[in-house]
Amino acid sequence: MAQYPEPLEALIRELGRLPGIGRKTAERLAFYILKQDEESAEQLAGAIAAAKTRIRECRICYNYSEDEVCPLCADPGRDRATICVVSQPQELWKIERTNEYHGLYHVLGGLISPVEGVAPEDLHIAALEERLKSGEVKEVILALDPKVEGEATAMFLVRRIRPLGIRVTRIALGIPLGRDLELADELTLSQALRGRSEL
Amino acid sequence: MAQYPEPLEALIRELGRLPGIGRKTAERLAFYILKQDEESAEQLAGAIAAAKTRIRECRICYNYSEDEVCPLCADPGRDRATICVVSQPQELWKIERTNEYHGLYHVLGGLISPVEGVAPEDLHIAALEERLKSGEVKEVILALDPKVEGEATAMFLVRRIRPLGIRVTRIALGIPLGRDLELADELTLSQALRGRSEL
Repeated sequence: MAQYPEPLEALIRELGRLPGIGRKTAERLAFYILKQDEESAEQLAGAIAAAKTRIRECRICYNYSEDEVCPLCADPGRDRATICVVSQPQELWKIERTNEYHGLYHVLGGLISPVEGVAPEDLHIAALEERLKSGEVKEVILALDPKVEGEATAMFLVRRIRPLGIRVTRIALGIPLGRDLELADELTLSQALRGRSEL
Repeated sequence: MAQYPEPLEALIRELGRLPGIGRKTAERLAFYILKQDEESAEQLAGAIAAAKTRIRECRICYNYSEDEVCPLCADPGRDRATICVVSQPQELWKIERTNEYHGLYHVLGGLISPVEGVAPEDLHIAALEERLKSGEVKEVILALDPKVEGEATAMFLVRRIRPLGIRVTRIALGIPLGRDLELADELTLSQALRGRSEL
């Protein structure tokens, strides 16, 4: 027999479903979990269950939140004239950590992708349009992946938002800090040239 | 605010305790788990809990098992005259997969390590000696890491087992298959020379 006991095999299988975790890594994690005391395993299992049950999407911006309205949307100190549109909550937090942005957010929950069968209706676009109706918002900043899906989504949003008389901008495309110019691809470089700024 | 909701932070923290999972990877896994449907998360949490509650150590060899005695110890087809000693259950399964060995096993649960405070009493050595008393066992094969701790453990076991009139062997040290001789370290190479075999 070269077969693991069924509960161990099941654990390896479940861990192996996580992104970037192959069979070997899943085995290593499973054996680690088995070797830990009961309490550590309970804490991990409990944290997974608790995160799923206690975290929901903010009713307004679809950020992950414990409350119906997330702390960002509820914060009276945030600039309510600007909404930054991102694809996923993790991107929102990345932007928050820059301390550069003090407006509101809107999480789409994905990007338009005909290949993967993601249509505009599958994203929180209608909810975004609803938010824009109040007249409070003056600028929508698109912070979407500079890839095919991100571009398609950006174009779609521009066509929907611009007629409302709201400014639509997008974050700059260019050379990442600390990167050699020599290593930049030509498309990025031409975007960087077009987006040049006065010194 | 650049802080995750508490249940998300807790999940990242718990995932980050796993070996080889840094903060960044833990974040990526946590966001993935949140994005999955409720059922997938429940399956993962359930698999962790089930593995811990349903798997125990075999009463005889300390291999992981669902039953009091593991399928290997219970298998009448195995050669009961040989016991292969390993440090961890995962090593047992590695050896099983070679299809080269058909005897029994004994899992020590670690290696003697004064640095990490692991003494012989912390390992399943007394249980091994108990098994050897029956007189049925003719050979004990040591399959321990060829490192300081493995050597120390091997030496300790040799001193305990040899007086019982039982043969103690260890798996060969040498050059791994497919590896360039040029890359082998001198200690391994000298072990490989000493352990040379007739062609």
